[in-house]
Amino acid sequence: MAPAYKLTYFNVTALGEPIRFLLSYGGLDFEDVRVEFEQWPALKPTMPFGQMPVLEFNGKVAHQSTSICRYLAKQVKLNGQNDWEDLEIDAAADTVNDLRSKLGAYHYESNAAAKAEREGPLFSEVLPNFLKKLDEQAQKNKGFLACGRLSWADLFFAAMLPYLNNMAKKDITGDYPNLRAVNEHVLALPAIKAWVEKRPKTSV
Amino acid sequence: MAPAYKLTYFNVTALGEPIRFLLSYGGLDFEDVRVEFEQWPALKPTMPFGQMPVLEFNGKVAHQSTSICRYLAKQVKLNGQNDWEDLEIDAAADTVNDLRSKLGAYHYESNAAAKAEREGPLFSEVLPNFLKKLDEQAQKNKGFLACGRLSWADLFFAAMLPYLNNMAKKDITGDYPNLRAVNEHVLALPAIKAWVEKRPKTSV
Repeated sequence: MAPAYKLTYFNVTALGEPIRFLLSYGGLDFEDVRVEFEQWPALKPTMPFGQMPVLEFNGKVAHQSTSICRYLAKQVKLNGQNDWEDLEIDAAADTVNDLRSKLGAYHYESNAAAKAEREGPLFSEVLPNFLKKLDEQAQKNKGFLACGRLSWADLFFAAMLPYLNNMAKKDITGDYPNLRAVNEHVLALPAIKAWVEKRPKTSV
Repeated sequence: MAPAYKLTYFNVTALGEPIRFLLSYGGLDFEDVRVEFEQWPALKPTMPFGQMPVLEFNGKVAHQSTSICRYLAKQVKLNGQNDWEDLEIDAAADTVNDLRSKLGAYHYESNAAAKAEREGPLFSEVLPNFLKKLDEQAQKNKGFLACGRLSWADLFFAAMLPYLNNMAKKDITGDYPNLRAVNEHVLALPAIKAWVEKRPKTSV
């Protein structure tokens, strides 16, 4: 029988990997379709808003990676126990997205002068301020990002970390032991460990 | 008795207004604290991740505007009726945030050359492609963004529209009748109409 879920994304971790982590965590079998960059121009117009990842389930198509993760989190019981807990977990994931957005605005800037202008403030002020606060949050939550226990926000962070590090050209958790603990908690989960071992090796 | 909810944000619509729309829609009384820009440098270090809006409820503090909206949507019954509907509504809100992000990357670009480079592709390709697909989505959903009926994604869009238009320096829904219908559906809701009439008049 074909897997119930079909994920379509590039052959990289980045925005697809949190979805792959959640499916793996829950033992949900999935077809892991990986689009090569040379196939993308032909495929792009067929994708919702010309973007990936896309998740197919039960004849329906979903897009927007963070929303897909939140949906899967409910299926695998990594969401909150009440509305306020969900808010705290959602906010933690949005904070990871803010981090991605700040790094992306630098990494993907095509104007060399604008990129150079951005570099100093990003690495000397913006990132340290941001990571310090996120590290404090992880400390308060005992090595997790929210609610003092494992939630989908932790998988979201750990799955995205190699991509964030790639954009920063360094391990952004280097000075932040509690953020390293979040990552280690996730990577030590047996289902995640097994997935990371068997997943295709990619440059990002 | 003091209102149960306290919202702290700048004296503008932007990211605070979807929260104000949702509180107003649900008839939830709230303290609408508006920080003037000259107060901000002193206040910024006290805010989670140095950002606003912030919502206080029951002695707890929440940040991240989209997450706050999703929480309030559950309180005022503008969320989905099942997990997949929630995914569709969440994805619609994320798409509005993508639109905001694309416009913001242009509007807030401080490097004049980079800003000029971005302008052509944004207004001749990126925005029209994006808005055309969002308009088709609104048509398919009968003048709403998801599930064929009113959800928090519609309030999110309508509340944010003046800010998006301000960044684009034009009405981005001008060529898109179904997106105008989404906005009109929301602004015609009696509680929203009453809020828009009584809210402080601001430049953005």
